[in-house]
Amino acid sequence: MSRLLGALAGDPELEALLSDEAQLTAILRFEVALAQSEAAVGLIDEVVAREIALAVEQFIPDWPALLAGMARDGVVVPALLAQLGATLTASARPALHWGATSQDAIDTALVLQLVAILPLLQSRIDTIRTQLASLVEQHGATALMAHTRMQAALPFTVTDKLRSWDEALARHRAALTALSPDLLVVQLGGPIGNRSSFEGQGDRVAEALASRLELRDAPCWHTARDRLIGLGARLAMLAGTLGKIGADIALMAQSEVGAVTLAAGGTSSSMSHKHNPVKAELLVALAHHTAGLSGTLNHAMLHESERSGAAWTVEWLTLPALLVSTGASLRLASTLLQEVVGFAEAAT
Amino acid sequence: MSRLLGALAGDPELEALLSDEAQLTAILRFEVALAQSEAAVGLIDEVVAREIALAVEQFIPDWPALLAGMARDGVVVPALLAQLGATLTASARPALHWGATSQDAIDTALVLQLVAILPLLQSRIDTIRTQLASLVEQHGATALMAHTRMQAALPFTVTDKLRSWDEALARHRAALTALSPDLLVVQLGGPIGNRSSFEGQGDRVAEALASRLELRDAPCWHTARDRLIGLGARLAMLAGTLGKIGADIALMAQSEVGAVTLAAGGTSSSMSHKHNPVKAELLVALAHHTAGLSGTLNHAMLHESERSGAAWTVEWLTLPALLVSTGASLRLASTLLQEVVGFAEAAT
Amino acid sequence: MSRLLGALAGDPELEALLSDEAQLTAILRFEVALAQSEAAVGLIDEVVAREIALAVEQFIPDWPALLAGMARDGVVVPALLAQLGATLTASARPALHWGATSQDAIDTALVLQLVAILPLLQSRIDTIRTQLASLVEQHGATALMAHTRMQAALPFTVTDKLRSWDEALARHRAALTALSPDLLVVQLGGPIGNRSSFEGQGDRVAEALASRLELRDAPCWHTARDRLIGLGARLAMLAGTLGKIGADIALMAQSEVGAVTLAAGGTSSSMSHKHNPVKAELLVALAHHTAGLSGTLNHAMLHESERSGAAWTVEWLTLPALLVSTGASLRLASTLLQEVVGFAEAAT
Amino acid sequence: MSRLLGALAGDPELEALLSDEAQLTAILRFEVALAQSEAAVGLIDEVVAREIALAVEQFIPDWPALLAGMARDGVVVPALLAQLGATLTASARPALHWGATSQDAIDTALVLQLVAILPLLQSRIDTIRTQLASLVEQHGATALMAHTRMQAALPFTVTDKLRSWDEALARHRAALTALSPDLLVVQLGGPIGNRSSFEGQGDRVAEALASRLELRDAPCWHTARDRLIGLGARLAMLAGTLGKIGADIALMAQSEVGAVTLAAGGTSSSMSHKHNPVKAELLVALAHHTAGLSGTLNHAMLHESERSGAAWTVEWLTLPALLVSTGASLRLASTLLQEVVGFAEAAT
Repeated sequence: MSRLLGALAGDPELEALLSDEAQLTAILRFEVALAQSEAAVGLIDEVVAREIALAVEQFIPDWPALLAGMARDGVVVPALLAQLGATLTASARPALHWGATSQDAIDTALVLQLVAILPLLQSRIDTIRTQLASLVEQHGATALMAHTRMQAALPFTVTDKLRSWDEALARHRAALTALSPDLLVVQLGGPIGNRSSFEGQGDRVAEALASRLELRDAPCWHTARDRLIGLGARLAMLAGTLGKIGADIALMAQSEVGAVTLAAGGTSSSMSHKHNPVKAELLVALAHHTAGLSGTLNHAMLHESERSGAAWTVEWLTLPALLVSTGASLRLASTLLQEVVGFAEAAT
Repeated sequence: MSRLLGALAGDPELEALLSDEAQLTAILRFEVALAQSEAAVGLIDEVVAREIALAVEQFIPDWPALLAGMARDGVVVPALLAQLGATLTASARPALHWGATSQDAIDTALVLQLVAILPLLQSRIDTIRTQLASLVEQHGATALMAHTRMQAALPFTVTDKLRSWDEALARHRAALTALSPDLLVVQLGGPIGNRSSFEGQGDRVAEALASRLELRDAPCWHTARDRLIGLGARLAMLAGTLGKIGADIALMAQSEVGAVTLAAGGTSSSMSHKHNPVKAELLVALAHHTAGLSGTLNHAMLHESERSGAAWTVEWLTLPALLVSTGASLRLASTLLQEVVGFAEAAT
Repeated sequence: MSRLLGALAGDPELEALLSDEAQLTAILRFEVALAQSEAAVGLIDEVVAREIALAVEQFIPDWPALLAGMARDGVVVPALLAQLGATLTASARPALHWGATSQDAIDTALVLQLVAILPLLQSRIDTIRTQLASLVEQHGATALMAHTRMQAALPFTVTDKLRSWDEALARHRAALTALSPDLLVVQLGGPIGNRSSFEGQGDRVAEALASRLELRDAPCWHTARDRLIGLGARLAMLAGTLGKIGADIALMAQSEVGAVTLAAGGTSSSMSHKHNPVKAELLVALAHHTAGLSGTLNHAMLHESERSGAAWTVEWLTLPALLVSTGASLRLASTLLQEVVGFAEAAT
Repeated sequence: MSRLLGALAGDPELEALLSDEAQLTAILRFEVALAQSEAAVGLIDEVVAREIALAVEQFIPDWPALLAGMARDGVVVPALLAQLGATLTASARPALHWGATSQDAIDTALVLQLVAILPLLQSRIDTIRTQLASLVEQHGATALMAHTRMQAALPFTVTDKLRSWDEALARHRAALTALSPDLLVVQLGGPIGNRSSFEGQGDRVAEALASRLELRDAPCWHTARDRLIGLGARLAMLAGTLGKIGADIALMAQSEVGAVTLAAGGTSSSMSHKHNPVKAELLVALAHHTAGLSGTLNHAMLHESERSGAAWTVEWLTLPALLVSTGASLRLASTLLQEVVGFAEAAT
C-alpha cells in the first residue's frame, strides 16, 4: 500500500506490529527462548544458551543481506541465522536454532505478534461499543424510519438501529476471546513437523518454549493452518459488521434522507457544497476488501505435504493485509461515530 | 448443479436436507410453532392456533404458484401464506404469521434445517477420524518420506502424516460443536426486527417459539449475519482440510512416488493402464470451490438497513452450495480413505 | 440451485443449453464428427464412421450408468463410450473415439454449447440496449439529481444517467463478439495433448473436425484455460454492469428519493404498503455472486501437468453457474426495465 | 507489503511506476494538459495555462498535508490543488482544474501510469517467450513423461510441454495489445460525468486533452469500470499461466521425478541437502493471490450512482496490488527459467 492510500485505508499501529522489525524481534525472541528451553532440558549447554541470548541482545541486522536471503530462500530465517551465527563462538554456533526449522521460527513469531495485536483489536471494539452506548444514551429515543429492501418500512428508534450493530460487535469481541487460547500456541516441529530432531525431547522443549513465550503448548500445526485462517475469517466478519455500519450511515446520510448528521465530511474538488461521508464509504470498501482477502486465504488450507512454500506465501500475502485492513476499519468506524452529531427521522 | 456433476461432486443426503420440500416443511413448522406460542401468551386464540396446525398438516402446496410468488416477491413466504391462508376460516386467517415477517420464517427455517445438517457433518467427520485411526493402527509404523517445499525431506511414518490430518479434523469437529449454541437460535423480529409488532409480547413469543422448536432464544439477528457466515467459514476450512488430504494423497499416489496404493481409481477413455485418483482430485477442487463460496458469502455481511434483499440472496446463492460441497467433500474423503490399500516408503 | 431459488435467480433457457442432455448431445456430435473426420483422412473406415453416426442417432443413454461412471471416472466419457460402443459391431467399436481422450470430447462439447449460448447472451444485451434507447426517447430530458459519494451533487438528465449504462453494455457486447473467434475452437489433443495418437494425422483430423463442427481450428489447449476463464471474467463484468444498474435503480427507487417509479414490486408478508424493488436487488446479488465465481474460476488457471482433474472440476463447478447467473441477470434486467414507468427529479 | 515480503514477492520496477510520486507526477501532468487544452479552446487564458504549467514544474509537494488531505477527503486531489493553487496568482487560481473533478485527475493519471506499465509487462512476456524458445532449441527433443490427473501417462517431449506454456503467453501478450486502445483513454467528465461544467466545450476539451496526453479520446467512463477490471482479469490470467508453469516445474523438480534440474534453489535452515524450488512455489502463490484480487476487483463493478467512494477505493486496494503481483510473477518466471539447467525423462 502506498503512503497516500495508507493515510486513507491503513493503520499505523497495526502496521508497526506487523513490520519487518517487529517480525525480526519476534523471531529472535523465539530463538532465545528455544535455546533456553533446550538448555533447560539438557539438549544444549546453559552457557551456550546465555551466549545466544546475549548475541541476540547485541544483534544488528544487515537488512540488505536479509532481503537477499529472503529472495533466495523464500523465508528470512536461513539468512538471519547466518548473520546471528557469525557473532557466536564456534562452539555455540551449532546450538543456535538447534533442531528447529524455519517454519517453527516464522510461525511462532507470527503468533507472538498476534499476542500484541488481538488485544488492540478488542480494545478498539470496546471503544466503538462505548461510543454506540453513548449515542444510544444521547439519541436512543429519536425516531428513525426503518428500511427493508431499500424501501421505507415502519418507524423505529435509534436504539433499535444501533442495538443490532452493537450485538454483532459483541459477538466478534467474544469470538476473538474464544479463539485466542487455540490460536496463541507455540509452533515447534523441526524439519518435518514430528519433533524427531529433538532427540526424544521435543515435547519437553515445546512445553518449556511455550512457557517462556507465554503461549500455550500444542502439537506441531505447521501444515494445518485452520487457526490462522479462522482468525482471518473472523477479521473479515468483523470488518463486515463495520462495513454494514458504514453502509447504513451512508444511506442515512443521503441528502434526501438526512437521518444522520455528520460533523465532518470530505471536501470535493469540484463541488464545495458537498460533505462526503468518506469514512462510511471506506468501511464498505474495506469490508469488500477483507471479504476477498479472507476468501483467498482459504485457499492456503491446501497446504500440501509437510510444508508448502506456495500456501505459506499465500498466507503472508493476505493475513497481514487482513489484519491491517480490519484495524483500519476499527479506526475509521470509531472516527466516524465521533462525527455523528445527531439523528433525525426522515420526513417521509 | 446438473445431475452428472452432482453424481461426482454433489451430496444426495445434504441436498435432501436443503431441498425445497425440506425448506417448506421447516417454514410450516415455524408458522405452527409461532401460532402456538402466540396462543400461549394470549396474542391469538388457542382454537385458531389449533386450526393453523391442522391446516398445515393437511396442506398440499401448489408449487407452480409458489415458484411464481418467489419470482415476484423475492421470497416464498407471501405466496405460501396466501395458499395456506386460503384453507383457513376467515377468523383464523389473520392469526396466521401474526406479527411476523418473511425473514423470521425463512431464517428460522434455515436454522431448523441446520439442526439436522450439523450432526450429519459431525458424524461424517467422526467416521473419517475412525478411518484414520484404523489406518494408523494398520500402517502407522510404515516409513514414508516427508516432503517440504515439494522436495523429499526426511523419513517419517504414516502415523506422523495422518496425525496432522486428524488433529485438524478434530478441531473442525469441536468448532462445529462450539458454534452450534450461538447458531441454532430462533429468529423473530417482525417487519423491522424490533418485535414491535407483537404488542409488547415479542420477547415472550420468541422464548416460547424457541422452546417449541428446540432452538435457543436470541435477540433478532436479521441484519447481522455473522452466525451463518461464520458457519460458512468453518465449512470452507473443513473442506480445506479435506482438500489438503486429497492433495497429499494425490501427491503420494503419483506413479513416481508410490507412497500410497489405492484400490480403485477412475478409468481413462484413452489410457487403459491408468488409475486416476479421482476422489483425491475432487477434494482439491471442492476445497477451492468452498474457499471461493465462503469468500463470496463474506460480502453478505454488508446487509444494509433493516433487510437487504441483495445480501440475503447472496446468502441463498452460496450457503446451501457450501453445505452441499462440504458434505460432498466428507463423503468423498471417506470413500477415498476406504480405497487406501497401503502405504510404502518411496525408493529415494 | 433449488427450484424455488431457480425461479428467482435461475434462467431456464440457459439451464437447458447447459443441461446434461445438451452436454450429451454435444459430446455425441463430437464423436460423430471425429469419426467422420478420421474417415476423411483415412484413419478409420468410412463404413465404420457411418455406423458410428447411425449408432449415435439411435442411442438411448442409460442415465444411471452414466451417473455411476461419472462418479467413478470423474468424467462421463468412458461410461458413455462403453454404452455407445456396446451398440456397435466388433469391428466398428475400436474406431469410436479413436485417438481422442475424454477431455477432447468434453471441452469441444462445451465449446459447442457456447456456440448456442453466446448469441443468446448477445441478443439479450441488444434487447436491454433497445429498452434503454426507448427509455431515453421517452424520458431522456427529464431532470434527475446526480449523486456522487452517496450525496446529491448536481442535476443532470435521464439521458446522462442511462448513457453510461448503455455504453458499458455496448462494450460487453463488443467484447463477446471479439472473444468468440478465439473461444469457439475445437479441442483435439489425444491422451497427452500432442496429437501423437493420431498417427501423424492429428492436425488434419483437427482441421476436418473443426470444419464439420463449424468451429475454428486451434492447437490443443487442454491445459491452458485462459479462453474459458476469460469468458468467465467477461460474464462477471457484464453481470457487474447489470448489478450497477440494479443498484442505481434501487437507490433511485428509495421512498425518500423517488427518482424512478416501478410498475411492479415484490409484496411483503408483513407490510402491505410496500413495493420492493426485488429485481433491482437481485441484480446486485447476482453481480456479487458472479464476481465471486469468476474469482474462483481464476484458480483453475493452475491446471497442472497435462490434465488436472482438480482444476478441470473447478471449472465445471463455476463456469456453468456463471453462465446461468449472467443469463439470469440479463433476464431480470430486461424485466426490471420493463417495469420502469417513469423518472422524476428528486425534490431536494 | 513489508520490505522482506517485497524482496520475495514484490517488483521494484512496477512499484516505482505505481508509487505516490509517480501518481502525483501523472496527476500534475493531467492538470497542465487540461489547462492547455482549455486554453486551446478558449475556456481559460493562454497566459494562465502557462502559469499553471510553470507552477507545476516548480511545485514541491507538502507530503504530510497531502496525506492529511487524502485521509479527510478520500482522494488526494483537493489537498493537492490547494497546495498548487497557493503558488498561483489570484487570477490564475480559478483556472486550475477548471471544470474538472477529482476523478478526472485520478483516473486519467492511472491511465497515464498504465501507459508505462503495459509495455513493461509485454516486454517481460517477450523475454520469457524467448527463454522458452531457447529451452526448446536446446532441449526440445528430450523425452519427458506426460502426466494426466497426477499420474504418469505417456512419453512426450520438452517441446510438447513448453509449447502449451508459450501459446498461452502469446495469447496474453496479444490480449494486452488488444485491450490497450480501449483502456488507454482519457477520463473527463466534470463533477457528475456529463461534461456540463465545460460550458458546452467538454468534448473539445477532452479531445485536446487526449491528444496532449497521447491517449485516446472517449466518453466519460467514471462509473463504468469494466476497462480497468478487464485489465485486472487479464493480469490474473497471465499470473495464472505463470502459476501453471511454476506448478509444472515444482512437480517436475520433485526428488522422485527429477524431470527438470534447477541450477539454484532456496536453502533450508534445517536440511542442508535440500534445494527448494522457491520461485516455482512463488509463482503458484502469486497465481492464487492475483486470482483472489481479480475476484475482489470484480465487486468494484458495482459503482453506484455517479461516483462511489466505496467502489473506487476497492479498485485502489486491489488493482495496484494486481499489477505488482503480476509484474513479480513475470520477474520470477524469467529468473526461474534461467535456473533451468536441463530436463530428463523420469525413470518410470
